[in-house]
Amino acid sequence: MLAEIIAVGSEMLTPHRQDTNSLYLTAGLNDLGVSVAFKTIVGDNRRHLAEAIHIALTRTDIVVLSGGLGPTEDDLTRECLAEVLNVQLVRDAAVLESLKARFAARKMAMPPNNVRQADVLEGAQLLPNANGSAPGQYIDTTFAVGAETFRKIVILLPGPPKELKPLFDTECKPRLAASLPPAHLARRVLRMALVPESTVDARCAPIYTQFEDVETTILAGHAEIQLHFLCSKPTREAAEFRVNTLAGLIEEEMADAIFSSNGESLEEVVLLMLGLRSETLAVAESCTGGWLGERLTAVPNSSRVFLGGAIVYSDLAKVAFAAVDPRLIAAQGAVSDPVARALADGIRRKSGATLGLSITGIAGPAIASGPDAGKPVGLVYIGIADAEDTQVRQLQITGDRERVRLWATQHALEMLRQRLQ
Amino acid sequence: MLAEIIAVGSEMLTPHRQDTNSLYLTAGLNDLGVSVAFKTIVGDNRRHLAEAIHIALTRTDIVVLSGGLGPTEDDLTRECLAEVLNVQLVRDAAVLESLKARFAARKMAMPPNNVRQADVLEGAQLLPNANGSAPGQYIDTTFAVGAETFRKIVILLPGPPKELKPLFDTECKPRLAASLPPAHLARRVLRMALVPESTVDARCAPIYTQFEDVETTILAGHAEIQLHFLCSKPTREAAEFRVNTLAGLIEEEMADAIFSSNGESLEEVVLLMLGLRSETLAVAESCTGGWLGERLTAVPNSSRVFLGGAIVYSDLAKVAFAAVDPRLIAAQGAVSDPVARALADGIRRKSGATLGLSITGIAGPAIASGPDAGKPVGLVYIGIADAEDTQVRQLQITGDRERVRLWATQHALEMLRQRLQ
Repeated sequence: MLAEIIAVGSEMLTPHRQDTNSLYLTAGLNDLGVSVAFKTIVGDNRRHLAEAIHIALTRTDIVVLSGGLGPTEDDLTRECLAEVLNVQLVRDAAVLESLKARFAARKMAMPPNNVRQADVLEGAQLLPNANGSAPGQYIDTTFAVGAETFRKIVILLPGPPKELKPLFDTECKPRLAASLPPAHLARRVLRMALVPESTVDARCAPIYTQFEDVETTILAGHAEIQLHFLCSKPTREAAEFRVNTLAGLIEEEMADAIFSSNGESLEEVVLLMLGLRSETLAVAESCTGGWLGERLTAVPNSSRVFLGGAIVYSDLAKVAFAAVDPRLIAAQGAVSDPVARALADGIRRKSGATLGLSITGIAGPAIASGPDAGKPVGLVYIGIADAEDTQVRQLQITGDRERVRLWATQHALEMLRQRLQ
Repeated sequence: MLAEIIAVGSEMLTPHRQDTNSLYLTAGLNDLGVSVAFKTIVGDNRRHLAEAIHIALTRTDIVVLSGGLGPTEDDLTRECLAEVLNVQLVRDAAVLESLKARFAARKMAMPPNNVRQADVLEGAQLLPNANGSAPGQYIDTTFAVGAETFRKIVILLPGPPKELKPLFDTECKPRLAASLPPAHLARRVLRMALVPESTVDARCAPIYTQFEDVETTILAGHAEIQLHFLCSKPTREAAEFRVNTLAGLIEEEMADAIFSSNGESLEEVVLLMLGLRSETLAVAESCTGGWLGERLTAVPNSSRVFLGGAIVYSDLAKVAFAAVDPRLIAAQGAVSDPVARALADGIRRKSGATLGLSITGIAGPAIASGPDAGKPVGLVYIGIADAEDTQVRQLQITGDRERVRLWATQHALEMLRQRLQ
């Protein structure tokens, strides 16, 4: 079964806006065993939209349209689909009443244009929209391609993601599932930090290529690699068995690098390990300026183990908040092994945490004068201190300022994870 | 002039990957006065791709294809375009030599498949690719639609953005500009924080709708609103005059809210103002956990005015790093006006900065016990202290944990900007 997703709206043909609904719709269609063969983005133009719908109906079985269901003259999806399917639009009295009620509840008169949102294609099932005024529509119909007639399913959904997503999940997926052969899917996601994509592929390809019935996707980005496995079988057990067998072999091969075998983030894993070991953590961040703290505190309830720390961006702050000896900074430079060591130990003592973690580095541009002058952009030191001992690692990270900073936080978390393991 | 952008690659039909090149290509085409009428995303499938190219040639004047120029059997863009245009692919000896040289420079033998990257469509101009192995191709040709024949320009570009962008800028834009009527564009971007989109539209629409020759786009996201103005005229002066006249009227109307009239970020503006006033800043972040520091230190050279501060996530850290009286926290709760006040003043004193800024709030979930129990999620206090005085503002931010945290950093920056103004 092939599907096409058509995103309707001139704003998505500008440099500023992108269709993102299609990623969500694709995941949902894949769940049902349907592949997306085409995505089209078309503006609020009657001829262009009608042509795009016509083309989609000739080349795929299921067409999902998002957007163009609003009340304005620019919202043409209903009209264009009616034209292509050669059916009437009928103004639905119940929808009209509920539109009026929506406005009345806000003590507003309904603008005359809004009546168009009550127009329903002949033969369509209405999909009530709890989060907006435009209902979705679901049409199970036939369409002539050349001399032959084929069954086609067309779905109209409003563009705003908070309306589209629940409508697709609650109204469309059950209807589609009832019309399609059953598909049982199993998924797994393995995540790895700091390993090059080419290394992951070289080590894993000999394994996953033997599982032709499991779709393997390698995603690289945000300083990590994800391996996604997807398998469809007549029973859920069969699908899960294949995915878990493959994931198990990959976990064995990449045991040193995998931080998560069920999709958890590196922050979540580190916080969990800290909690299990009854450790508490404080950080002293120079070049990352608070990014590591931001990542840790993005996880709800991280306060159980993460105490906080200091943004030691200036030398003054290194002295004031992590008790670094200013003579050490003057002698070695702020970006140095001894200062990383002093920061990690100092922040641990000052905060009362059991573990202190420090990051100091040159995110770019290069430093022109003083003891750090001449050190290369991307040079980063990471320190981890406990009551007995402090470890420091020196790194040379490539890329621009943002990449150096992101990778520095990633190295720090991964170094901590390996130490806790 | 209408264009269609076709992104080729099965990975962009999964839930994980999106075409992003088209945003860049659209901006470049718009610069030349060309509108994008359709975007199509199609997989590595010979029949689907050939059909998509055929359709694009029948409905637009310029077709830009990205991706599918690699060495593997899945890379079909060259073959499919040759089939649709009914021209031969010719293996180019010079390209073949440069491919071999690329591999030789890395001391590798060229895999046999790679010779396909030297295949050039008859009549195409080669676009040398300094950042990858596949050259681009530029074809200025004719195509029959029904009984008539039309001039068409087709551009083939490699998929990786770091190869596509320079190739499009240096090789394609000059060629397109020479083929098209001259277009002189002027742009301006005004940015506002913390104003609802509906307010901006209600106040600005009466102004910008009077400028029919200026395209106005309102973009909302990341706790700010951007107004983009774009105008095309026969001369650059005429275009700039219209854009600047409109921007000036909007600046007057929204003077209280606009933080940037040339596109700078709020962080950049605040850092600039601090520098001009010879102020230095330190922060104490509780619920935002370092995010504000991260935003400020993302700007190069921010160390001139931003000293750093503390991630005062735990009560212990509030006491240790910002000298907050623990009895105050016990009595009022960490999320309170007096604690925000003590944090801002304490971090200023501890760091030696001229200004101290604090954020304390409940990002969610709600706090179950202690003095902050019962306070609503989204309650945030922001404090700003100088040597004379401390101001505190209480906010109630709606949304999830991430939104509360992002908007808290945005409120803090905007409060600081207004104070510095």
